[in-house]
Amino acid sequence: MSYRHVAIIGLGLIGGSIGLAVREDLPDTKTTGWDIDPAVRRRARERGLTDTVCEDAGEAVRGADLVILCVPVGAMPAAAAAIAADLSPECVVSDVGSSKRTITDMLVDALPGFTVIPAHPVAGTEHSGPDAGFSMLFHQRWCIVTPPADADRAQVARLVDFWESLGAMVETMDADHHDKVLAVTSHIPHLIAYTIVGTASDMETVTRSEVIKYSAGGFRDFTRIAASDPTMWRDVFLNNKDAVLEMLDTFLTDLALMREAIRAGDGQTMFDTFSRTRAIRRSIVALGQDDARPDFGRGDHK
Amino acid sequence: MSYRHVAIIGLGLIGGSIGLAVREDLPDTKTTGWDIDPAVRRRARERGLTDTVCEDAGEAVRGADLVILCVPVGAMPAAAAAIAADLSPECVVSDVGSSKRTITDMLVDALPGFTVIPAHPVAGTEHSGPDAGFSMLFHQRWCIVTPPADADRAQVARLVDFWESLGAMVETMDADHHDKVLAVTSHIPHLIAYTIVGTASDMETVTRSEVIKYSAGGFRDFTRIAASDPTMWRDVFLNNKDAVLEMLDTFLTDLALMREAIRAGDGQTMFDTFSRTRAIRRSIVALGQDDARPDFGRGDHK
Ligand SMILES: NC(=O)c1ccc[n+]([C@@H]2O[C@H](COP(=O)([O-])OP(=O)(O)OC[C@H]3O[C@@H](n4cnc5c(N)ncnc54)[C@H](OP(=O)(O)O)[C@@H]3O)[C@@H](O)[C@H]2O)c1
Ligand SMILES: NC(=O)c1ccc[n+]([C@@H]2O[C@H](COP(=O)([O-])OP(=O)(O)OC[C@H]3O[C@@H](n4cnc5c(N)ncnc54)[C@H](OP(=O)(O)O)[C@@H]3O)[C@@H](O)[C@H]2O)c1
Repeated sequence: MSYRHVAIIGLGLIGGSIGLAVREDLPDTKTTGWDIDPAVRRRARERGLTDTVCEDAGEAVRGADLVILCVPVGAMPAAAAAIAADLSPECVVSDVGSSKRTITDMLVDALPGFTVIPAHPVAGTEHSGPDAGFSMLFHQRWCIVTPPADADRAQVARLVDFWESLGAMVETMDADHHDKVLAVTSHIPHLIAYTIVGTASDMETVTRSEVIKYSAGGFRDFTRIAASDPTMWRDVFLNNKDAVLEMLDTFLTDLALMREAIRAGDGQTMFDTFSRTRAIRRSIVALGQDDARPDFGRGDHK
Repeated sequence: MSYRHVAIIGLGLIGGSIGLAVREDLPDTKTTGWDIDPAVRRRARERGLTDTVCEDAGEAVRGADLVILCVPVGAMPAAAAAIAADLSPECVVSDVGSSKRTITDMLVDALPGFTVIPAHPVAGTEHSGPDAGFSMLFHQRWCIVTPPADADRAQVARLVDFWESLGAMVETMDADHHDKVLAVTSHIPHLIAYTIVGTASDMETVTRSEVIKYSAGGFRDFTRIAASDPTMWRDVFLNNKDAVLEMLDTFLTDLALMREAIRAGDGQTMFDTFSRTRAIRRSIVALGQDDARPDFGRGDHK
């Protein structure tokens, strides 16, 4: 049974996309929204990101049976505090934060007596803000739901259902495991991309304009993810420190081995490493999470 | 004045694309081609990658006023040896290798008395072989020409002209500088992508199928470049060792700083780093080397 009234706190890329997707896929569900920034609220109203854009958080969540916090990870405590007094007793509180352990613990603590079921839609773009959202963002993308151990199964099933209605494929796992998986598939890639783009901007022997000019040789694919929102990513690294450091150290060990192979002119080790990685690419394309077409199928999403 | 007869040695992605582009953009120029692999020659003939696909290297280059070696960097010496006896005296020998210092020195040594003007079109895809080429590959992409210090200026200008005819923008620079620039914009990004895709395939706590499933969080952008040809990339790292190691060590220093910021929970350093990198992305998009559209404008190229 789908929700009657979904309240969205934070009307940027993810919050806005959820609002638009609910209107399209669950036309009987009412949506309300709120954002801390008056300019975002104004723009959200113009785009109709939710049926109603409220002027305060309490008004937005009053009567809602699902509240989704769509703010940066570091703003989750403030968002929880802003809604706590006005939640309906039977309401489910969820979120979309990119890390899950710290958020889960914080929400359970901050909202005693309410049902908390965190989630993370693994879908996004490098854009943010109220103009960035679109209703198809979650189509064919995974959403990971991370219920606390004692969560009510029927409530979890209902949230899974909700995300499936928006076109997502849903998987349920423990918050700690989520944080490890995402450290590998998302957080470390972003950290590396940010770092190398920084390194390249500061070279002494190669100018920045050369880096920009010749970026088609591979570099530009890193700049896209390194253009993501700095606040969002700062908060992710502050909140998923342990898993990120663990995975980063494994990567650094592997990179040291490649460095040594290059130093020693060990072509066989390079060839073997470079051959193994093709298989994983093929699987990603086969599973529909990327595409061999020149636009990687991203055009399907607009 | 454009060339009368262009011979292409190696009929994979780059060689095939040059053949197709010459037919389209320089219809008065005759093309011949040869590849060491009989299956590639057969397929090249079916696709008409060059006007004639010859059965031996000597036949392909006889009478040509431009010969372009389009083989992996490590196969350049063998390709030079295969054509040396049959080159016309007035012919210019060029290549498309992704590293330039070792190739320049080798070609000058191997072909005494001939005009050698190396080049590198900074354009490519993750695909290779005789089916991968297309005539628009070089449109709006840079081609770097790296003439030896004593090269004839008229001959250099003629080669620059040739690449411009195929739609490329051309820059001339010293081979050593080329190797540093490409180490940053292409070789290090590929090395890092190969390494992280390898790291992710071997995790103990996260399964390979999880990595594949949740790759949309950033990882998939790395897998595309890590699907490039292993032979080509082995040869690049064997031939551009010094510049790659120098840039890699700068990157490793920067990554160690980010690691420390994460360990210490230093959000300000993270935020500052993550903010600076957006500017470079904007410049790349503004210069037409990438695109804000979901397909990054790659659709324009097919
Ligand atoms: N972007 C992605 O690819 C992606 C993917 C999956 C999950 N996520 C997660 O989704 C969440 C939102 O990300 P996003 O990309 O949608 O960011 P966004 O576009 O920047 O939207 C976040 C919005 O929340 C507002 N906000 C900040 N603090 C608030 C508060 N205390 N109360 C109410 N609103 C507040 C922000 O306003 P101001 O701009 O004025 O601060 C902004 O309008 C984050 O937790 C992120 O980790 C992102
Ligand atoms: N791919 C890119 O993105 C890119 C971009 C710019 C420059 N480049 C450079 O372009 C060159 C070619 O790369 P590519 O991507 O076109 O590779 P490719 O598609 O694999 O084509 C290379 C062709 O050369 C053949 N070959 C190997 N040794 C040969 C020899 N001694 N004589 C004649 N043919 C020989 C190969 O046959 P077998 O397959 O049977 O060995 C293959 O058909 C490389 O030097 C590379 O560094 C590549």
